[in-house]
Amino acid sequence: MLISQFGGETALINLIRDKYGAAPSGDLVLGIGDDAALIRMGDRYLIVTTDLLIENTHFRMDINDAYMLGWKSVAVNISDIAAMGGGPTYAFISIGLPDIDVAIVDSIYAGMQDVSNAFGSVIAGGDTVGSECGIVINVTQLGIVEHDRAARRDGAKPGDAIIVTNTLGDSRAGLELLLKLGLDDARRGSAFLVERHLKPEPRVSEARAAVGTGKVHSMIDLSDGLASDLPKLCVASGVGARVHADKLPISKDLHIAAARLDTDPLELAASGGEDYELLLTCAPSDADAVIKAIQTTGSTAAIIGEVVDDRAVYLVSSNGEIGPMPASWSHF
Amino acid sequence: MLISQFGGETALINLIRDKYGAAPSGDLVLGIGDDAALIRMGDRYLIVTTDLLIENTHFRMDINDAYMLGWKSVAVNISDIAAMGGGPTYAFISIGLPDIDVAIVDSIYAGMQDVSNAFGSVIAGGDTVGSECGIVINVTQLGIVEHDRAARRDGAKPGDAIIVTNTLGDSRAGLELLLKLGLDDARRGSAFLVERHLKPEPRVSEARAAVGTGKVHSMIDLSDGLASDLPKLCVASGVGARVHADKLPISKDLHIAAARLDTDPLELAASGGEDYELLLTCAPSDADAVIKAIQTTGSTAAIIGEVVDDRAVYLVSSNGEIGPMPASWSHF
Repeated sequence: MLISQFGGETALINLIRDKYGAAPSGDLVLGIGDDAALIRMGDRYLIVTTDLLIENTHFRMDINDAYMLGWKSVAVNISDIAAMGGGPTYAFISIGLPDIDVAIVDSIYAGMQDVSNAFGSVIAGGDTVGSECGIVINVTQLGIVEHDRAARRDGAKPGDAIIVTNTLGDSRAGLELLLKLGLDDARRGSAFLVERHLKPEPRVSEARAAVGTGKVHSMIDLSDGLASDLPKLCVASGVGARVHADKLPISKDLHIAAARLDTDPLELAASGGEDYELLLTCAPSDADAVIKAIQTTGSTAAIIGEVVDDRAVYLVSSNGEIGPMPASWSHF
Repeated sequence: MLISQFGGETALINLIRDKYGAAPSGDLVLGIGDDAALIRMGDRYLIVTTDLLIENTHFRMDINDAYMLGWKSVAVNISDIAAMGGGPTYAFISIGLPDIDVAIVDSIYAGMQDVSNAFGSVIAGGDTVGSECGIVINVTQLGIVEHDRAARRDGAKPGDAIIVTNTLGDSRAGLELLLKLGLDDARRGSAFLVERHLKPEPRVSEARAAVGTGKVHSMIDLSDGLASDLPKLCVASGVGARVHADKLPISKDLHIAAARLDTDPLELAASGGEDYELLLTCAPSDADAVIKAIQTTGSTAAIIGEVVDDRAVYLVSSNGEIGPMPASWSHF
């Protein structure tokens, strides 16, 4: 049976996790199923996450920039470390390369190094090989978190406030502009949105500030989009969620771009992926303290809804209608 | 300038290491340039290694078997852990998949899990994505080693005996049989050689036994072949080496296959890659003790030459002629 007939990426990941993934045991505190694994190492947890990017499947060089490709490939892994409440330490870079210009490779690594250093990490190893099918990049990022600061997907409680950092949908709007206009014209259209797509900022300080309050119940980074990642957090926690459409934080640039792209900004915010903002939950009485802590980093944060007892994820429209969250895209 | 004009894989790896690799500092004891990185974690070192395999560049499914592909992709990483003197703990598997039969994916993971469990490791995380260019596998393997057992490439001393485990060249001969005859006929020709290529055994027990003597000065695993890996150890240690052709351990199957393939078995043993045997050095007076320790695991080990003061790597032929080691292949 083909993967597509079997139920696609999600069904396959479930099969791999259930049949081949190690259950927590010994020093392995958390295995497959969260943003990253947690391994006990002395008085702290080692955090390990890995991401594979393949040219023409996950990125296209004709609407990209080598430096930003390098930046993003490491940034998305640092974002997973942040989602666990930790700080990144060491990156291991595997790269498969066709016989391309060395200057492109140099720019990719410059982007990788810059984002690593910006967030307190370094490149500590890797593997460099030839490739007959375009550029392939795998990043494994290590990080560290104190036992009492580790954030997981599975701690959300009914009644919790749901908080997200900054604005949603920008990255997807940036991608749509890139696909429609190409790199140069898209940048002229909205440098902000294009940068949100090509050069995301992992929210390490924001996550550290949030978990530093001791009030965070659960956390995840928004890599696949709110409509895809919030259900993951809910399934892991055995809860549901209600999101209020008029509370979704939407940037001015997204409003303008959505008009130009003839798209609903709400749909981009709810189901667009790759924002790499944080989604976290805490008791409603602690929400102010958590939001204030996040704001000390210069980012904004807002309550967008609440955790509920039944297991579905709803979107409450601005006129009060309740419907299912619009679905997100799938890789297969 | 294209990578091929720049000096290929080796020159590119040097550029990346020198410009972007972190120098040892703080908890990072050893970064890019050995089989794996060493990171201080309490009273032991965390070992981290990663390897990227791309279909039609590094393996072909028409002369492979999904289970063995999974086995090998993890085994080569466990071999790097062994080369540092350590034991493997946790594997992180990134896999890029076209829309293929789920049974193939299942077999790949079964092989990964079996080799992990056989050597005391488990699959603790990963990333599963679509791929438009064949199967892509990246394995990041973690391991652990005591401070006083860690083996590195850079400790060889002039006068050291050079020891290798088991026999050399088998994997390359297995590959040649596969390319010439296809999987089924190659297996009928020599199941031993085909298995040596498709399902290598990482030498964890052998490495642990060797470093357990406290006598090992330097160690590397033979992934690219003796003619390529011995010079790497020599460069790292600032020494040279003299290898005696008639001391290279060659299996009976390799002799038979070399005749059939009309190839010199010595050349396969010296420059064939992917044997994943250990090459290590120690004082000549300790060689017996190290060899005996390795033999307790059921493997054989033999002295093949000695470390010398000048920086070249020589092969001494059976009639006493001294020449340069035959070169190994390159990926680009």
